[in-house]
Amino acid sequence: VDRSDLGRINAFTDGVMAVAITLLVLNIEVPTVDTGAELHDELVDLIPSLGSYALSFALIGRFWVVHHNAFAHLRAFDGTLMALNLTFLALIALMPFATDLSDRYSDEPIAAAIFGVTLGLASLINWYMHVHTMRKGLVKPDFRDDASFFSSGIAFGFTALFLLSAPLAYVNVHIAQVMWLSTFALRYPLRKLGSPTSSE
Amino acid sequence: VDRSDLGRINAFTDGVMAVAITLLVLNIEVPTVDTGAELHDELVDLIPSLGSYALSFALIGRFWVVHHNAFAHLRAFDGTLMALNLTFLALIALMPFATDLSDRYSDEPIAAAIFGVTLGLASLINWYMHVHTMRKGLVKPDFRDDASFFSSGIAFGFTALFLLSAPLAYVNVHIAQVMWLSTFALRYPLRKLGSPTSSE
Amino acid sequence: VDRSDLGRINAFTDGVMAVAITLLVLNIEVPTVDTGAELHDELVDLIPSLGSYALSFALIGRFWVVHHNAFAHLRAFDGTLMALNLTFLALIALMPFATDLSDRYSDEPIAAAIFGVTLGLASLINWYMHVHTMRKGLVKPDFRDDASFFSSGIAFGFTALFLLSAPLAYVNVHIAQVMWLSTFALRYPLRKLGSPTSSE
Amino acid sequence: VDRSDLGRINAFTDGVMAVAITLLVLNIEVPTVDTGAELHDELVDLIPSLGSYALSFALIGRFWVVHHNAFAHLRAFDGTLMALNLTFLALIALMPFATDLSDRYSDEPIAAAIFGVTLGLASLINWYMHVHTMRKGLVKPDFRDDASFFSSGIAFGFTALFLLSAPLAYVNVHIAQVMWLSTFALRYPLRKLGSPTSSE
Repeated sequence: VDRSDLGRINAFTDGVMAVAITLLVLNIEVPTVDTGAELHDELVDLIPSLGSYALSFALIGRFWVVHHNAFAHLRAFDGTLMALNLTFLALIALMPFATDLSDRYSDEPIAAAIFGVTLGLASLINWYMHVHTMRKGLVKPDFRDDASFFSSGIAFGFTALFLLSAPLAYVNVHIAQVMWLSTFALRYPLRKLGSPTSSE
Repeated sequence: VDRSDLGRINAFTDGVMAVAITLLVLNIEVPTVDTGAELHDELVDLIPSLGSYALSFALIGRFWVVHHNAFAHLRAFDGTLMALNLTFLALIALMPFATDLSDRYSDEPIAAAIFGVTLGLASLINWYMHVHTMRKGLVKPDFRDDASFFSSGIAFGFTALFLLSAPLAYVNVHIAQVMWLSTFALRYPLRKLGSPTSSE
Repeated sequence: VDRSDLGRINAFTDGVMAVAITLLVLNIEVPTVDTGAELHDELVDLIPSLGSYALSFALIGRFWVVHHNAFAHLRAFDGTLMALNLTFLALIALMPFATDLSDRYSDEPIAAAIFGVTLGLASLINWYMHVHTMRKGLVKPDFRDDASFFSSGIAFGFTALFLLSAPLAYVNVHIAQVMWLSTFALRYPLRKLGSPTSSE
Repeated sequence: VDRSDLGRINAFTDGVMAVAITLLVLNIEVPTVDTGAELHDELVDLIPSLGSYALSFALIGRFWVVHHNAFAHLRAFDGTLMALNLTFLALIALMPFATDLSDRYSDEPIAAAIFGVTLGLASLINWYMHVHTMRKGLVKPDFRDDASFFSSGIAFGFTALFLLSAPLAYVNVHIAQVMWLSTFALRYPLRKLGSPTSSE
């Protein structure tokens, strides 16, 4: 097990995430209309779809950044990590479906719940990959314990937030949507709290 | 022929497998309905499609892991290996079609047979790539003969099992489905048997 | 932060851009007709779509070349650059939609305006990534200040040109189309002006 | 211009070719039928589509092998090579369209002609990239002149053969199809002729 092996896992992971994030655009369909006025109206109706696209692009993008940071600290991997990583990718690759569903049925709790559960499970696997690599000593020695503890806490918090958004979508779909968006607002205060002396 | 050449073959292989595994999601179609109750029913009907997605994702994922392990032991390649690898990729790239077919016609023996044959041929090429690289001395010297013998045996066993699932699908489609799933259950006992002293 | 980290950002960027540029072909639909004569007529009608394909392929291709050149000069990155790069990729990944829209409604100002704004925003982010990396000292010391000043000027000029094409499309759609094409004609005189002593 | 720059061009090229080759599967559509007997008949009707898939997969695969071999000999690149490479990729990315067209209208000369011209132009650019890199001294010194002369000859021959298949398709579509297939049969005698003393 050497760096070039890790390189190939990263390459496959990057490939799946790059394809999944780019397939999101297929959910924004060009309208079929007859007049310019109709086209204008239909394009205005596409704005929520564009919002869904931007949200899912940002969410997958952040998962990629987190994965990139976590795997940069690895010195080795095992079969369990490989299986966890594939499960993580299977959830990320579901995102174009979950995005299309929650966009087309934006008022239906079940659609929002499926979107929330998909994100929650991806966060959960992501968190567990972190725990597993720490426990099995697969990370490089220079990786600080407190940084690890903090990253793990954020990953666990995101998991809880995304999973909780599923039942809360049945109370009100907008609560779930606000919870997803809130994860971007939380990022900066959390980071400041976690690493007050580091400059990134 | 040096490592960077092997790197580019790996990159192309990773690319094709990453695209094929991510295209599987296009088979799970967002339902078109009018009410929340209908949406709920249609999503419940999608559960088998989600199962097909998970199975094919796991199968392609395992092919990738096996390919990754095999190619990590290579020190060189030849034109025959290049042609075999392209044939292997052509079969993997058919998986989104074979998955969609066997999912939409889950009771039809012919659909299951095509799925089984696609997997069987991919396993066969995979096994033959192994035999070819051993015979032509394309593997690194540190690759143990007994490990090779064992890997080759598993690959041959999987080939037989997948190819046999095709005629048995005509007896009962569920037999074929159980055979595909069994390859995941067999993995751990086989590995223990094969490398009792190695720690992965 | 080392070169291999930059390597993985490049790999993800290349992946998204490679998928987006290849998805452009899905906009060129094979006609459904009954006779050879009809097929001939329908294929002739596809020529403008082929032109749109070529234009967008060239535009994304040039964005890739520019990105490649800019990132080859980096010695480090920060969280802001990561976020900017993801935003840039989200705009590039919209190109198959924007291309399909402006091709199917080639007479509608709004379609051309959306195409122009998408390109303009991608150019703007591209320009700002340049400014940000210079300001934060993320570029290698051997990168000349005057080269930087010049690249930055071109990037800003392209941004202005693409963004201006949006309102001008409401005067006449063809003005916008000529402006997009003109960016390819401008490239050579600008380069000569900018680096009279460099041989590429 | 160093090796890592070449690495990124290769990565983008591999990405586009991997996506284009995998998108070919989208042309094989799962039939929509009611009974097992109908499914059987429809699947038999898909066999020519599977043949088209195999042919285009093999053709793109061979273009990839040739590109891989040619770029392995490069020591540098210039802006012209970058533009040629993007044009080459634009033609490869058209292959899913050209394959679908020539498969669905397998009796129509115009469909075969478009397939032949796409391949011919890709071969032509491929040949010209070879000429350009030799002329500008972009290849490594260890690359033999006679090997170059021979590769260039094959590339030119393939270009002529693919371009000639277009007018000959109007005489008889099967002549064009046989010409495309013949390029695989010609490979081995040509290679023997060209490098009698090399062992691959």
